[in-house]
Amino acid sequence: MAKYSKLFMKDKDSALYFIYASSEQSADLFYLAGVYVPDPYLTMLFQGQSYAVVNQLEYGRVVAQSNYDQVFLLEQVKQELARMHNCEERAIGPALIMRHYAKKFKVSELTVPNDFPAHYFAQLQDFGYRLSCRAHELFQQRALKTAGERAAIRQANRASAAGLRAAERILKASQIVGNRLQYQGRFLTADYLRQQIDLACLNAGALARNTIVACGRQACDPHEAGSGYLRPHQLIIVDVFPRHQKTGYHGDMTRTFLKGRASDDQRRLVSIVRQAQLAAIQTVAAGQSGHQVHQAAQSVFTSAGYETKRIRQKFVGFIHSTGHGLGLEVHESPRVAPHAAALQAGHVVTIEPGLYYPEIGGCRIEDVVAVQTNGAELLSKMHYRWCL
Amino acid sequence: MAKYSKLFMKDKDSALYFIYASSEQSADLFYLAGVYVPDPYLTMLFQGQSYAVVNQLEYGRVVAQSNYDQVFLLEQVKQELARMHNCEERAIGPALIMRHYAKKFKVSELTVPNDFPAHYFAQLQDFGYRLSCRAHELFQQRALKTAGERAAIRQANRASAAGLRAAERILKASQIVGNRLQYQGRFLTADYLRQQIDLACLNAGALARNTIVACGRQACDPHEAGSGYLRPHQLIIVDVFPRHQKTGYHGDMTRTFLKGRASDDQRRLVSIVRQAQLAAIQTVAAGQSGHQVHQAAQSVFTSAGYETKRIRQKFVGFIHSTGHGLGLEVHESPRVAPHAAALQAGHVVTIEPGLYYPEIGGCRIEDVVAVQTNGAELLSKMHYRWCL
Repeated sequence: MAKYSKLFMKDKDSALYFIYASSEQSADLFYLAGVYVPDPYLTMLFQGQSYAVVNQLEYGRVVAQSNYDQVFLLEQVKQELARMHNCEERAIGPALIMRHYAKKFKVSELTVPNDFPAHYFAQLQDFGYRLSCRAHELFQQRALKTAGERAAIRQANRASAAGLRAAERILKASQIVGNRLQYQGRFLTADYLRQQIDLACLNAGALARNTIVACGRQACDPHEAGSGYLRPHQLIIVDVFPRHQKTGYHGDMTRTFLKGRASDDQRRLVSIVRQAQLAAIQTVAAGQSGHQVHQAAQSVFTSAGYETKRIRQKFVGFIHSTGHGLGLEVHESPRVAPHAAALQAGHVVTIEPGLYYPEIGGCRIEDVVAVQTNGAELLSKMHYRWCL
Repeated sequence: MAKYSKLFMKDKDSALYFIYASSEQSADLFYLAGVYVPDPYLTMLFQGQSYAVVNQLEYGRVVAQSNYDQVFLLEQVKQELARMHNCEERAIGPALIMRHYAKKFKVSELTVPNDFPAHYFAQLQDFGYRLSCRAHELFQQRALKTAGERAAIRQANRASAAGLRAAERILKASQIVGNRLQYQGRFLTADYLRQQIDLACLNAGALARNTIVACGRQACDPHEAGSGYLRPHQLIIVDVFPRHQKTGYHGDMTRTFLKGRASDDQRRLVSIVRQAQLAAIQTVAAGQSGHQVHQAAQSVFTSAGYETKRIRQKFVGFIHSTGHGLGLEVHESPRVAPHAAALQAGHVVTIEPGLYYPEIGGCRIEDVVAVQTNGAELLSKMHYRWCL
């Protein structure tokens, strides 16, 4: 990744911007820093330059590998401030260090991200600073992927597909025994299948977390990870979103499988979900809104008579949005949902309509596309055969 | 995990406590909720009861599986508020919803965690509320592990040990060819070894992230993940901290290996690090401070003449603290470091002294202990043979 000053030449903003986070937790910060720091530390953006204050454990590595224009040593800053305030070094907390730099840069107005820790926000207010919260413009460009980033997402989806194929292979090779599936002499569980999927992803270089293997009624809670025995003749949703270890970018793909005989209702459900997905993908292009893409999927469901409604504590039908941005985070900007804004060339989004009815089962089919001027470029690849 | 009301019967606090986070990112919140929710949502603690406001995608699962005393449906709350304010539902953001509940609970003072998002903090201030930041007492007990939590950490460390043994096995089976190692016909890299370690962890049910395989000078940056060819006759630090998939608890273990012939300096370094680790472990007991445990390791290094100092941009010697709390997070309370407070029975901490000199290499040896009234109980198990 380029230096901040190169990433963001047109910094019209003269405010001092503070970030206090770990680049392992904050994708924005990793995008800026280009290096993983496991514990929270101070980052500053000021007049087109980027600065970090890190401890001795990180210092050498951050100096050598990060995008920061300048890196300060935390222990040295603390020493200086302790001398100035005539106190012990461990009394020098992050807010005092931030005040130190605000003075040094001669600013009285500070800007911080929306998720800046309230504790330091309040302390800086007590010091007399005016603070405002907003996303830095720098991070808006994170939604627009370069060719290199699109290639990284495609690579991560090769790992997603490896995981899905592992699931398909095991389901194919298993036997139906009563109301369970037997594989290599054991009854097949969601946990076992998840582990085999995750191993296949890791062998392809990507780390899968919270992989969904949800069978029958379980699949009707779309964020339910799934547990227990996998059943024949029921729809099984497999949703995998691994992060590639080299690049940090995610893949995200879903296929719905069934081992055994599918009912007519199940066949119709799967076929309509795939039609809705195709309709949504065909709508994707720069200038089309996320709302319009979502509506394209919704229309297919409505025309085919698939209603979305609440039945007691359960929601059935098309109960989630059509997609979301994908990159360093699994869920990021932009949205593909009701009221969502216009898509731009370079956006990368998932297209994953689904239908959920406890008496039939759940079906979701998910691929990833890059928005282009005149259409969509698929960044995921795997067949759609589902009845194994 | 028990319901909040059972977890925390003696809630003397009449303030309304807001948390706005994802239970996948916040370990505190997962400890309270007992269920993973991937996107940020509102949690409220009030007079010994816990409440969540989640969207329809999460609702059924959170009602069925979480520890919350009551779960509200976000869409319904938005609908009500939109009617009241005569606006569109999508204009109802989290701060308006928080104000709604503050009115409902009839409070004017609000408390939030230190890492509460500054954006909503500022909005609630603008609504006229007095806010203060502090860690909720509930989360202090997270540092004191129950027998079940200690068992979960021990189980996660069986996965750590499986990863370390995979590394040992491959290093043992490899051949020295010039200044590289050959394994199954290929030159052995840090990346390959890391992948094999992570696969072994996953086979044992735990997900490893950012596993360190750092050879020679690389190991002298303790958070450097390591890359490139592994070299004979050099110290190789392998540090693995996987999260068990079933429980969410982490293991954390480090061994230092060497393939080939160790020099006298390397032998002495490894032997002194192990002595420092034993000295630190022998100091652990309820009532002893983290400071004293750190000093026990530090004294062994000082007596043996191993200095800690800065040489230009590099720090050499014993450049980090002796350990940290371990549980749902890899780094959590308490610290085992200079000025750290008294340890309590039930605390679980790593003991991981290390020495780093670029001309010799780096060595760190790490195990996990539970603090007991009269000593320490080891929660990690693997031999200390290192010269393969």
